[in-house]
Parts: sequence; structure tokens; C-alpha cells
Amino acid sequence: MTTQPKARKTSVTVLGLGSMGQALAGAFLRAGHPTTVWNRSPEKGEELVSQGATLAATPGDAVRAGELVVICVIDYDSAYAVLEPVDTADFGGRLLVNVATSTSERSREFGDWAAKHKIDYLDGAIMIGPNFIDTPDSLVFLAGSRTGYETHRAVFDALGGRVRYVGEDPGFAALYDMSLLDFLWTSMSGMMHAFALAGSDGVKASDFAPYLDVMLDTVRMLAPDTAREIDEGAYPGGGELLTMRCSNVDDIIRAAELRGVDTAVLRAVASVEHRAKALGHRGATSSYTATYEAVRRGRATE
Amino acid sequence: MTTQPKARKTSVTVLGLGSMGQALAGAFLRAGHPTTVWNRSPEKGEELVSQGATLAATPGDAVRAGELVVICVIDYDSAYAVLEPVDTADFGGRLLVNVATSTSERSREFGDWAAKHKIDYLDGAIMIGPNFIDTPDSLVFLAGSRTGYETHRAVFDALGGRVRYVGEDPGFAALYDMSLLDFLWTSMSGMMHAFALAGSDGVKASDFAPYLDVMLDTVRMLAPDTAREIDEGAYPGGGELLTMRCSNVDDIIRAAELRGVDTAVLRAVASVEHRAKALGHRGATSSYTATYEAVRRGRATE
Repeated sequence: MTTQPKARKTSVTVLGLGSMGQALAGAFLRAGHPTTVWNRSPEKGEELVSQGATLAATPGDAVRAGELVVICVIDYDSAYAVLEPVDTADFGGRLLVNVATSTSERSREFGDWAAKHKIDYLDGAIMIGPNFIDTPDSLVFLAGSRTGYETHRAVFDALGGRVRYVGEDPGFAALYDMSLLDFLWTSMSGMMHAFALAGSDGVKASDFAPYLDVMLDTVRMLAPDTAREIDEGAYPGGGELLTMRCSNVDDIIRAAELRGVDTAVLRAVASVEHRAKALGHRGATSSYTATYEAVRRGRATE
Repeated sequence: MTTQPKARKTSVTVLGLGSMGQALAGAFLRAGHPTTVWNRSPEKGEELVSQGATLAATPGDAVRAGELVVICVIDYDSAYAVLEPVDTADFGGRLLVNVATSTSERSREFGDWAAKHKIDYLDGAIMIGPNFIDTPDSLVFLAGSRTGYETHRAVFDALGGRVRYVGEDPGFAALYDMSLLDFLWTSMSGMMHAFALAGSDGVKASDFAPYLDVMLDTVRMLAPDTAREIDEGAYPGGGELLTMRCSNVDDIIRAAELRGVDTAVLRAVASVEHRAKALGHRGATSSYTATYEAVRRGRATE
């Protein structure tokens, strides 16, 4: 074997040094990338400078220093504000990555702004806390410029286990983000309700909590088949039948009512199930997945 | 070491031989318990008889044959109907276990019926399918007679990994069951909604599904601390703040509205969060767990 020439490492800039920005810059530094940082309050960059980062005086200086420019601020209004004084021509030959929390609509607007100024752009959504950056449990979605992603793929590896490019639509990273949080917070609301239902008869939450794992395993087990049924647009019976589900949820609602526990979420869950039945999905031939038809149409189009 | 005398195995009866009743009887047989079975259509017992079970001609004969009598029929009305011709005196010295699907109210009524007839009673809830009986992933809740449970604990071991006695209130097995299903079906509804939200912009469900695991891991990770906060009745800030949550869910609702996707469940989730804020849980000092206060009170007591 011959010795490979040591690859020159891509220079990286991080604008915005909240806890996430600091974690990103730290990961790029550890991976050996020349890293320039900027923050409105420069003292947030001190520790990174002690680790080898260069502190830029202005966002423009910072942008000019990096081939890959990551902006990590609280939201898209803040991102526009940070970039406002920068000459957009300074982005020439660079890739801009915006990882502020967003909706897909705002990400697409930002993509349009970048396109208008001929800036190569990737929209990012970071699904994990700063402590998980540069670990196997990291999860970052990227969407937008495919060539930008492919050129800098090795740089993104510094961020940890799972950096996933999900498509050319710059709204897709935020869409994956929002859809996952949709699932997370609906599930968390279900967890709160389960604690309240059991708790109203005196069951301690910590006695009950360990059994939630069994249901989490059930959701995990049902997810791939559910996804396949949705993609195929067919919901044959065999697994969890919609009819069984409706009667089960109705029982839980009655139990909650008896105990004075909130029923708003469960009634909404039941309404979706009953609307799926009204759409013709009933009996032994419709799996629970048929509720997808009711969910995707919404109430307005019944 | 001296040789232990071989313990006499407790005789067991299973009334009702649907797929679950057959799985239970099979597990008792494999564990070496003399097992008697009864079913309204006796042919359902043929395979079990070939494995060594005794087929009883009547429910009364079946009850008299077992020290532990398990009834496994579709619901509690069916259980009363099966037991109606049996002389309740025949239950003397026996333990009756009813594992029909139930609500805690119906289980308590059944417990009252058993108490009236001086029948030692355990109410059961089987949380897994028949294929998981007698596996490490089995999960069965039992509630009611503590002495009944303790006397026959070794017999219940035949049912697999996790047989859990959850308390003397005969409603508790069904309460755990209902509360877990509450969590499961609210979560499943969230999964459907996430598929619909992502799908409305063209994301395939099977491309999106693998990432649900990350959120399932998050729920699993949040559960113990959430339970502790509930048991302590204090929701200090530090983790997921309620205020952040509200604005996040409101964003997802707007995204769903834009796409014509149902918003009923999410609006209910948001209403609980906003009610928790109205109860005074806001700012950097209230974790998401504060929603528990809104859930357990319900809308009526606002």
C-alpha cells in the first residue's frame, strides 16, 4: 500500500454560538477542519478559540473564511438579520447551511432567497440536543442542493452517526422534523393521559411507566407494515382491525369521563377512527391503517 | 445435596378455547400441570387433548377438576354466561382467574360477584397476542386476591416472562391494560398523522418510518423523569419546557392546515398544553410534565 496524501480539510464557518452552534463548531474542530466562528456576543466563542477556532469580527469576515458556512441561530428571522449586512457575492463558491428551527414553508422561502442570490443552499434540521452531536445517536436532516451535499458529505460526517440527505426540496428537512415532532408530542400527550387515567385510581406513575416500553415496542413493530400499507394505498385486514380499535378507544373515553380526566385528545383520536369507518373502511377487511385516509383528508373535505 | 421430592403440580382448568385460551392451556400443559379444558364447541379442545389435556363435558365438571380455574372468553357477559350453570360452591378452595378483555369498572363488578359467592378471585389482563404466551416477551397483569396470587405464583410462571401482580383492587389489571392502550392508540394516531403530514408533500411513508425509532427512543428516555415529576407533583424547568412545546405544536397545526391534513388530534393536544399554561405553568420554570395537571382535571373543571 502507498501512503495517501493527507487530504486538505474543508474550512468551515459557524455563525451563531448558542449551545448547538458551539457543539457544531467543536465537532468540526475535532475533525480537523479549519473553523471560523462568529457570534453577536463574541465571548461565546472564547472556549472554541482556545480549542483552535478563529473568531471573526463580522458575519462577512466569517462567511469569507469558510468553504462551508453553517448558520445556527434561533429562527429564520434571526438568520436573515445576521446575513443582512453580508454581501451576497461573498457566498460565491461556498455552501450555506441553515439549521435554525423552521417550518418547511419558511425553509422554502429561505431557499428562494438563496436561489435569488445564487447561493448554493442546504436547509438543515437537527433532531437531537447539542450533547448528541458527534455521537452515533446524532440525527441531522439536510435538504436542498444535492451537489452541495455531495461535495461536503465528508464534512457533515463530523456531526455524528446519522446525517441524512432527504431531497432537493429545501422544505424537506423541516418537514421531516415537524412530522417527527408531530408524532413525538402526540405520543407524549398519550403518555400524560395514560399516567392520569391510571393515576386517578391511585396507580403511581413510576409503577406504571416501565410498562410503556411494551407499547413503544409495539409501535416500533407496527410501523414498517403500516408504512407499506400507506405506500400501497391498501389496508387489508389481518392485523389490528379498525372496528376493534374504535370500540376499544370508546371504552377508554368512558373510563376517562368516569374519572373526570380530560377526553379531548381521545375524542379526536376516536373521531378520526369513526370518520375512516364512514369512508367505507370497516369490518374484518380494514386494518387500522385505513385511518390514514381520514387523517390525510382532514375534517373539511368529508 | 439431597434430591428434592418432585413437587406435585397444581391442576389447572381453562374455560374458553379461542386462540388465547388454547395458548394458555398449551403453556400449562408444557409446564407439566394436569390441565382440563372446556369450550362450547368441544372440537376446539382436540389438539390440546392430543397433548394430554382432559376435555370436560360441562363448565361445572371443568371447574371441579382444577385448583386454578382460568376463564378466557370474549368479554365479561360471556364469562357470566359460562359460569351461570356452575354451582358457586364448586369454587370452594379454588382460585378463579378471569382474563376476558374488560374495563376496570366491569372487573370490579366481577370481583364483587366473586366476593358475594366467596370465590377467591384474580382479574387478569393479557397484553400480548397468543404467540407471545410462554415467551420472555409475555406480559400479563393480575389484580385481586393477593393470597390467591401468592399461592399460585409458580403456576403463572408458565405464561412467560412478565406476569405482574399489580394490586388488590380487581380493577387494576384492566386499568393498566386500558391506560397502556390509551398510550398506544394515541401514539398510533400520531404516527398516522406524521405519515400524512410528510406524505402530503410527497414523502413516502417507508422513507420516513425508520426515523420514528428516534422519537420512540426519546419517549422511552423521557418516561422515567416524567413519571418522577408526576409522583412528586413538581414540574421544574430544565428539560422540555412547556412554553417551547406550545409554540412548536401550533406550528405543526398550521402546517397541517396548509396541507388540508386533519388537525383534530393536534388541536386537542395543543388545547391541553394551553390549559396547563392557563393553570399557571409557564415560562422557564415549567416542564412539559405540567400538562399532567390539565389532563387529570379535564375540561369540565377548568
